[in-house]
Amino acid sequence: MSKYKEYFNQKELKRKPYSFSPIREKLHEIIFEAETTAGKIFDIALLIMILLSIITLMLETVPAYYKNYKTVFLTLEWIFTIFFTVEYFLRIYCVYRPRFYIFSFYGLVDLLSILPSYLTLVIPGMHSLMIVRGLRLTRVFRIFKLDAFIEQGNLILNALNDSRRKLTIFAMTIIIMVSIFGSLMYLIENGINPQFDSIPRSIYWCIVTITTVGYGDMAPNTPFGQFLASIIMLMGYIIIAVPTGIVTSSIIKESKMYPNTITCKNCSKEGHANEAKYCDKCGFEL
Amino acid sequence: MSKYKEYFNQKELKRKPYSFSPIREKLHEIIFEAETTAGKIFDIALLIMILLSIITLMLETVPAYYKNYKTVFLTLEWIFTIFFTVEYFLRIYCVYRPRFYIFSFYGLVDLLSILPSYLTLVIPGMHSLMIVRGLRLTRVFRIFKLDAFIEQGNLILNALNDSRRKLTIFAMTIIIMVSIFGSLMYLIENGINPQFDSIPRSIYWCIVTITTVGYGDMAPNTPFGQFLASIIMLMGYIIIAVPTGIVTSSIIKESKMYPNTITCKNCSKEGHANEAKYCDKCGFEL
Amino acid sequence: MSKYKEYFNQKELKRKPYSFSPIREKLHEIIFEAETTAGKIFDIALLIMILLSIITLMLETVPAYYKNYKTVFLTLEWIFTIFFTVEYFLRIYCVYRPRFYIFSFYGLVDLLSILPSYLTLVIPGMHSLMIVRGLRLTRVFRIFKLDAFIEQGNLILNALNDSRRKLTIFAMTIIIMVSIFGSLMYLIENGINPQFDSIPRSIYWCIVTITTVGYGDMAPNTPFGQFLASIIMLMGYIIIAVPTGIVTSSIIKESKMYPNTITCKNCSKEGHANEAKYCDKCGFEL
Amino acid sequence: MSKYKEYFNQKELKRKPYSFSPIREKLHEIIFEAETTAGKIFDIALLIMILLSIITLMLETVPAYYKNYKTVFLTLEWIFTIFFTVEYFLRIYCVYRPRFYIFSFYGLVDLLSILPSYLTLVIPGMHSLMIVRGLRLTRVFRIFKLDAFIEQGNLILNALNDSRRKLTIFAMTIIIMVSIFGSLMYLIENGINPQFDSIPRSIYWCIVTITTVGYGDMAPNTPFGQFLASIIMLMGYIIIAVPTGIVTSSIIKESKMYPNTITCKNCSKEGHANEAKYCDKCGFEL
Repeated sequence: MSKYKEYFNQKELKRKPYSFSPIREKLHEIIFEAETTAGKIFDIALLIMILLSIITLMLETVPAYYKNYKTVFLTLEWIFTIFFTVEYFLRIYCVYRPRFYIFSFYGLVDLLSILPSYLTLVIPGMHSLMIVRGLRLTRVFRIFKLDAFIEQGNLILNALNDSRRKLTIFAMTIIIMVSIFGSLMYLIENGINPQFDSIPRSIYWCIVTITTVGYGDMAPNTPFGQFLASIIMLMGYIIIAVPTGIVTSSIIKESKMYPNTITCKNCSKEGHANEAKYCDKCGFEL
Repeated sequence: MSKYKEYFNQKELKRKPYSFSPIREKLHEIIFEAETTAGKIFDIALLIMILLSIITLMLETVPAYYKNYKTVFLTLEWIFTIFFTVEYFLRIYCVYRPRFYIFSFYGLVDLLSILPSYLTLVIPGMHSLMIVRGLRLTRVFRIFKLDAFIEQGNLILNALNDSRRKLTIFAMTIIIMVSIFGSLMYLIENGINPQFDSIPRSIYWCIVTITTVGYGDMAPNTPFGQFLASIIMLMGYIIIAVPTGIVTSSIIKESKMYPNTITCKNCSKEGHANEAKYCDKCGFEL
Repeated sequence: MSKYKEYFNQKELKRKPYSFSPIREKLHEIIFEAETTAGKIFDIALLIMILLSIITLMLETVPAYYKNYKTVFLTLEWIFTIFFTVEYFLRIYCVYRPRFYIFSFYGLVDLLSILPSYLTLVIPGMHSLMIVRGLRLTRVFRIFKLDAFIEQGNLILNALNDSRRKLTIFAMTIIIMVSIFGSLMYLIENGINPQFDSIPRSIYWCIVTITTVGYGDMAPNTPFGQFLASIIMLMGYIIIAVPTGIVTSSIIKESKMYPNTITCKNCSKEGHANEAKYCDKCGFEL
Repeated sequence: MSKYKEYFNQKELKRKPYSFSPIREKLHEIIFEAETTAGKIFDIALLIMILLSIITLMLETVPAYYKNYKTVFLTLEWIFTIFFTVEYFLRIYCVYRPRFYIFSFYGLVDLLSILPSYLTLVIPGMHSLMIVRGLRLTRVFRIFKLDAFIEQGNLILNALNDSRRKLTIFAMTIIIMVSIFGSLMYLIENGINPQFDSIPRSIYWCIVTITTVGYGDMAPNTPFGQFLASIIMLMGYIIIAVPTGIVTSSIIKESKMYPNTITCKNCSKEGHANEAKYCDKCGFEL
């Protein structure tokens, strides 16, 4: 988003004297901004509409409800779709640079939220894809100015990003482990226990076990199978400590990185250590 | 509680010369205080009564017991209710400012502990609400002067409060994730597996899976469903590291905040061990 | 143990000239010490005997094995029991102060390892208690001089001891939570779902769920029950972070406490901070 | 590997003037190195072959597929085996010191990847062992020069190695705990619940429970059994914090060990941020 804005601002500076009709300006204010009362009301109304449309979509799949309220669901679905379609085109209409909006993250999500409804007219069974609408709910952060939330969210993302490589190695190790143990289990239980009838299914069982999910749709029958399963479980119990350790270590590091608000008066660098006396970027006294 | 006390003390100072009858004074000492032997015995007896009333309440719902001991349960229930009712009115009678007690946390809990019994006379089936009595057990901290426990409990609460925003974002992310994966699972398993007959139920399955609970009342049947389930499980396994990392980081921070405040008078070094007698930087006596 | 030794040494100093017959001395060396070859062989043989006796005990309970090898099991059991009985009396015979041994931890465990066999002659079905023999295996640490292991084990115990209060509060909170949610679940599912037929069983279900065990022997049927279950699961998922955070924080603190081997030359205090220049107990320069 | 290389280089220095035929030199470049385009293509092709052979092996065990595509699987298996056999002998042919390759980790894995196929000709049912081929996939790190990944992987391994003793003690404690609780459960449920028909099976149940896997293939029936199970579950819930705490503490320590080694030339302060240009204590340029 920031890159887009940067590019936009840059262009904007060159051909500044933009003049939309007052209606388009007003519309832009209502739809895209949340500073005015009208803008805020529109955004909250939109959020409620999105939520309702998702709930409708989910309840529609409940057989008991669908049988009794088929027409209600169909009507509601089209009301939401038409509302979102109108909204989508209004957005294109009142934005300064439609192309930027259309290809932005929110623009694509907005389009994907309405497309499936129309696609169902051609290809049946597509409308379940409308669940994509859920992504529109992330607008909530923008509306309520949840900057503190975004900051904290970024901290988590940074921590996860920081431990990306460790977690990848961990995931690969787990995949290799479940493959080997799954195959071993197949060798042990196959023939005796009809549940372990193939290596892929045995690997599935091993994942269910090592992650401590344990459905119980598959469970070892033979004493030796139960013995191996016990070892796998105990390993899973200890191994779960690894990703936790990785992420915790990163979160602690990230939390320490933004502990104060000391900003260098010379180069305005932020994120200094608490005991720092000089800016570590420009050497200026803090 | 502390705010209430503060306010109370403040008022108390203004109109001090309170004089209750000796019986009311004595009653207050027994019921509200735990310094005297009588007060301690009353408090412990009360705790045992509360515990017994909760156990009675729970056992009452066991069909086998209820059938055989119906009258015993009914008798016990009314004995406890009458005891707690008398206690409640005695508390109001002997407290200096009844209104403060009635609207305090413990006052409301005390009221809610007896109300359901009387309500059952009017509306049947309400007496299960008496489980609220469990909250009365928190008095245990007061009686045994478990200040150290309260301090530690506050540390945990502070840590949770400190990581409130991160946990909220995490919970929201999980909710969005389970909605998307639940819907995907519905698309894959619906029609083949009767267990995945609606999106809400598929989301329920996804929560059961991602939290590693794994009842097994619903489990994917199709190979592709099992493949997606495996990915969800592995994600859940790694994702559980996030709240742990958040809370651990906060608890470490909170624990560090109250280590001690010993500062060397010579070199003003902080962060000494609790049992330190000399500054470990300059050797000066602390 | 150290206290016992201290006391023992103290007494020993007073009436030193102990003189056992050379056989008793030799026996003591073999049975109680592991410095000589004979002592080591005895200890390893003992460990193997203990392990074998436990395995025998466990396999004996497998119906298929018991039916076919009843006499083998009975013979083995009495061989082990007689061996351990002889060993027990030899220990009493050759130790300097029998009373100290008999009432020491190992003395009591040794007695409890043989008693159940004899008790079965009087009261049948008692011999399952022989599982207590497992505790004898902890001798392994002594034999193999696993001091480093003991030190690390102590670190964990110290960390757990340090977070004792926090974990107690956490456990109490969980117990209150599962009582309330279990009761709520009973109110919702009772009558519709025969599995939730009493509050104690509903609480059992709630524990199974919140700890993410999830057997699946009980699972909610009603949509609202599944909704509440989802909330409980997500809470359990996040709440598991609390004990982890508590213990991790303590282990980090404990690990930091013994990071180096700096010992004060003056007062021989250990466990100084890495950057310490002066002993914080006596102020002596390190 | 590094030791092998060292030794190799040492010997190499002594009898340097090695001269292979250009074909052997070229082959070595293609098979063993990944610097040239040909070498890279070979390595990627090999990786794909390995992956395909593993997938074939797994799908072969699915009864439905095996019945229909028996000959396809057999053909594919032999194509892969012959390809890997040729590759293995080419490696031996073109390497400077065949013996070093044959007894290196990769050499043994390469041999074990082809042996089972030939063994099946003699002893049927051995070809499941070919899953060992999965280990060949670890070559991926070498090909894509994933040094950063290896470094991070080493950090995790160091952390696990560092906490080896603590985790061993923890595992032993868990094993003793599940033995004792499993036996107790056997005493309680045996006779009433046919699932708990032996101590080994009860211990298996206890492991399933304490690790929070919870298949549900075995679950307590008696009220007292469910009560003990509840306690075991709550213990498992809290105990899981121990390995997590151990590993997290180690990972934090390891992460801190390699931050950087930048030291201020002026005041010799250590522990600067990676991007720091000036010392944050004295302002001196780093």
